[in-house]
Amino acid sequence: MKLKEIRQPGAYSYVFSKYADPVVTVQPGETVAIYTKDAFEDRVSKPTDRPSQILEGDPNPQTGPIYIEGAEPGDTLAVHLLNIEATRDYAVSAHKPGLGGLTPTSATPMLAEPMPEKVYVYKIADGMVTYNEKMSYPWRPFIGTIATAPRIEALSALTPFTHGGNMDTPETKPGNIVYLPVNVPGAYFYTGDVHAGQGDGELCGFALEIAAKVTCRFELIKGKSINWPRIESANELMVIGSARPMEDAARIAYMELIEWMAEDFGWDKYDAHQALSQIGRMSVGNMVDTYYSLVAKIDKKYL
Amino acid sequence: MKLKEIRQPGAYSYVFSKYADPVVTVQPGETVAIYTKDAFEDRVSKPTDRPSQILEGDPNPQTGPIYIEGAEPGDTLAVHLLNIEATRDYAVSAHKPGLGGLTPTSATPMLAEPMPEKVYVYKIADGMVTYNEKMSYPWRPFIGTIATAPRIEALSALTPFTHGGNMDTPETKPGNIVYLPVNVPGAYFYTGDVHAGQGDGELCGFALEIAAKVTCRFELIKGKSINWPRIESANELMVIGSARPMEDAARIAYMELIEWMAEDFGWDKYDAHQALSQIGRMSVGNMVDTYYSLVAKIDKKYL
Amino acid sequence: MKLKEIRQPGAYSYVFSKYADPVVTVQPGETVAIYTKDAFEDRVSKPTDRPSQILEGDPNPQTGPIYIEGAEPGDTLAVHLLNIEATRDYAVSAHKPGLGGLTPTSATPMLAEPMPEKVYVYKIADGMVTYNEKMSYPWRPFIGTIATAPRIEALSALTPFTHGGNMDTPETKPGNIVYLPVNVPGAYFYTGDVHAGQGDGELCGFALEIAAKVTCRFELIKGKSINWPRIESANELMVIGSARPMEDAARIAYMELIEWMAEDFGWDKYDAHQALSQIGRMSVGNMVDTYYSLVAKIDKKYL
Amino acid sequence: MKLKEIRQPGAYSYVFSKYADPVVTVQPGETVAIYTKDAFEDRVSKPTDRPSQILEGDPNPQTGPIYIEGAEPGDTLAVHLLNIEATRDYAVSAHKPGLGGLTPTSATPMLAEPMPEKVYVYKIADGMVTYNEKMSYPWRPFIGTIATAPRIEALSALTPFTHGGNMDTPETKPGNIVYLPVNVPGAYFYTGDVHAGQGDGELCGFALEIAAKVTCRFELIKGKSINWPRIESANELMVIGSARPMEDAARIAYMELIEWMAEDFGWDKYDAHQALSQIGRMSVGNMVDTYYSLVAKIDKKYL
Repeated sequence: MKLKEIRQPGAYSYVFSKYADPVVTVQPGETVAIYTKDAFEDRVSKPTDRPSQILEGDPNPQTGPIYIEGAEPGDTLAVHLLNIEATRDYAVSAHKPGLGGLTPTSATPMLAEPMPEKVYVYKIADGMVTYNEKMSYPWRPFIGTIATAPRIEALSALTPFTHGGNMDTPETKPGNIVYLPVNVPGAYFYTGDVHAGQGDGELCGFALEIAAKVTCRFELIKGKSINWPRIESANELMVIGSARPMEDAARIAYMELIEWMAEDFGWDKYDAHQALSQIGRMSVGNMVDTYYSLVAKIDKKYL
Repeated sequence: MKLKEIRQPGAYSYVFSKYADPVVTVQPGETVAIYTKDAFEDRVSKPTDRPSQILEGDPNPQTGPIYIEGAEPGDTLAVHLLNIEATRDYAVSAHKPGLGGLTPTSATPMLAEPMPEKVYVYKIADGMVTYNEKMSYPWRPFIGTIATAPRIEALSALTPFTHGGNMDTPETKPGNIVYLPVNVPGAYFYTGDVHAGQGDGELCGFALEIAAKVTCRFELIKGKSINWPRIESANELMVIGSARPMEDAARIAYMELIEWMAEDFGWDKYDAHQALSQIGRMSVGNMVDTYYSLVAKIDKKYL
Repeated sequence: MKLKEIRQPGAYSYVFSKYADPVVTVQPGETVAIYTKDAFEDRVSKPTDRPSQILEGDPNPQTGPIYIEGAEPGDTLAVHLLNIEATRDYAVSAHKPGLGGLTPTSATPMLAEPMPEKVYVYKIADGMVTYNEKMSYPWRPFIGTIATAPRIEALSALTPFTHGGNMDTPETKPGNIVYLPVNVPGAYFYTGDVHAGQGDGELCGFALEIAAKVTCRFELIKGKSINWPRIESANELMVIGSARPMEDAARIAYMELIEWMAEDFGWDKYDAHQALSQIGRMSVGNMVDTYYSLVAKIDKKYL
Repeated sequence: MKLKEIRQPGAYSYVFSKYADPVVTVQPGETVAIYTKDAFEDRVSKPTDRPSQILEGDPNPQTGPIYIEGAEPGDTLAVHLLNIEATRDYAVSAHKPGLGGLTPTSATPMLAEPMPEKVYVYKIADGMVTYNEKMSYPWRPFIGTIATAPRIEALSALTPFTHGGNMDTPETKPGNIVYLPVNVPGAYFYTGDVHAGQGDGELCGFALEIAAKVTCRFELIKGKSINWPRIESANELMVIGSARPMEDAARIAYMELIEWMAEDFGWDKYDAHQALSQIGRMSVGNMVDTYYSLVAKIDKKYL
């Protein structure tokens, strides 16, 4: 069977929004292959390129909106991530002035000089992503940005929030299911910013950025609403909370995981709170975006 | 060979401090067994006990100070964690008003009623720590609180900071080496608050609290100073940053890991920053103490 | 001369956005009177009303967008605030579950019961706003929400950010000039959420909310761009920074004030930094909105 | 009547602590004159001095501990501030690497170069504190650091917390009463770090630092305990909350002010919360110390 291939027909989107026209309609149950640009708009490919001159801000172009037939506010969209392929043989990262967790930014401004700009081009080959002999890392692809449209807002593609978005969380990877709230008719799904791999926190603000082909299948859970994005893997339930300061992201992630345990698995909320105190897991997705993203997890065997 | 056994001779300590007299002197290279009380002062053992009435505040009694012969300011104390045994057959956790990551506290006060108080007593047997049929978790012992004395301060045993302290980080476990800065002659080592297991963040403020016997060996690294606690496992280097808000703990942990990579492994700092962006790991130790503790990690194979 | 009166022709706006059609066009130099609804949509007027049942979320309806003829991205819009009249004789405040600085919210969730709901209706008369004999406060009207449209985002009317918005800062009052960045052609000006008075921080999330008639005059400063909203009074220059955590709002406000002193008054940035260390003023606008707003100030006599 | 003059007999203190011997005993009701060194240990006096080389860290030497006869844990110490004189004719401020609200610090580390070091020496004359023609500011003296000893901790003199400490709040000035909790017998009072003036936030980390003679009178309020420092002026009640992130300092300050209104003035807590929403005031004391200090205020006429 041939997959439906989705390529952005015109300009890429830089917001998650219901105010744009859908680029394609997809049926629940349908498997599609979505082509995405990298976070540099595919415009940075050489060590001598200067993102601060080439790009306007930090662009993060998105493919979408994709209209999901039958999706209504109050439903949940389940995105089964099936496969990620790079559509080129290199990945790019960079130190860019004003971006990152260890440098002054517009959100945390300082009277200090920014970090020197530097572009890192990695070769993708043989299951490795390689900058030089020492800096060579396994191919661990995932989606940095995956979202539905907010109810009335049009949010920057740099922002992670209740609708998903730029969560930069390595758990949004093939084999896992990402659950997103449906806020508008048709859901208006967006994705982009695929990574060949990333450390926890995405410290410099750029992972191993790639242009990619993402294969996934959409399912609708009718009449089931969620407050924050969720992920399910073979072994774990996860919630992603995005906020500043980071402790609020942690609170959101654990609180929503308690809600999930209570609603779907019959837990008393206080017992769920106690259980997570003893066997919950929490990792840092990003510590660089407009909101920080933390991931709370529970092994299904403890449910 | 018989181990030197260290039992607190009188009152336990509730601060990390050079202002107390050492309870014992230990030689570098010597292996000792240290007996510790649990965070409830071993005074909570039944579901009907009320910590808010039994205890004054959140006590966290420490065994120490232990004088390390030959330790001088500017050295590093390497604590090789060898073994942890529970000295009783149960662990205790609790929901206590004013403590936890999802409840108003004295640090984040609110005009809201606290969570209902509840004590959870877990049976330790057959490698499991069991509250009931559903809430039964593996035995994963580690030390919640491990510290040297600060240079001039006497800090509460509830506080994690540059000297170690109440980090509540599951990586301070047998098989790993904990590196702590020596700030005063003799280092003045303290430990306590041993856990039979804990989830990331220690959400309710109490892990599976046990009285314990901790076996460890002290080594001195003369003339080597560190700014924050470090941990080394068979496969990883780790730094624990403790601060509020949580993003500052993340910044500290990654920044000090960059310093470690630069000083001991010859990395250019910007390349280390890039490498951690792609393969660094970061988990949440605690999100409940006076400072939050985050752990930055790098797999040694990437050094 | 008769003022142009601006009444929202249809539905009020709940976002700041360029994606809506302007309701009216205004010329630079023109003085207009804008009618606004209160933050409760004028639907809460009795102590027995329950905002949590009457309202969907926290609505904050805005009048606009108002198209400013000739405004182009890169310009600054100067809004001369001339007068505020209440269009009714009462003001309303409320304690509403999930809103406020001392209660769990969706941004800082907790496993705790919310504060009891309560509506406070104040009588406006004789220059006072009066709930009862003890709680009677002077008439100190100002605009809670005043904004241009963001460049590509549609942001909730609850949000204060670089474009202005829901800053809830008592300095946006008659006699002062509010400077806002122009991000889109025509600026797309919005305002609403007028207050009969407010304490610093807007602790409970609602000030003395009124329906109002706001008289103001728009001027354009062509080719002059600013990063954050500014206010000028007879004696002071002010910048409003909005962010979480609150220290980032403080950094933004002082950093942008340093920029202002450097660009328009010839200060060396480090000397400006030193001067503000000695005579800068900083107050809390709001500690309840999606971002906190802090106001940095310098007395003009020190320029 | 001749005042009792208190000069530190030996080394100044760099912690607030009960572990030191009192330097003098004072009776309740007694008026004393306390001599203090400046935050640079009086060792920086010329523009060419380099604090980073002259000083070890950020010292903040304190005069004390002063034993208050009859003070017992659970009492409150009322310090009536009567007068401040500079004991020299100049004040000093500085930009020092690693200190300040707009520069990377050990608490908020970054891979960025620090701000250039610079010393500002101000002449004190004719009621003005003058660096040059433009940077000349009124004499507005207050105490930067004022504290009792914590119960069991010895906290750095750089730290503001429940016991007072390095709050850097311009309201601790002559004419006002500072209330501090008594945590240990004799209270162990400390003071130092007097300023000839300061902007809100103490942006660069140094105010107009002076050596000084502080005249004050101590009173005891027996059997009255407070949780956080309070200030009373002729017209206002104030509470200082110190925490990170800054919103927690704001929560503490307003929450404790609500407690004060309830306990001493008979307010219902929810009504107090409502009143502060409409007429509370909040300013930023410091945004640079180990904890940030915010001041919540209410005009007495609204009580």
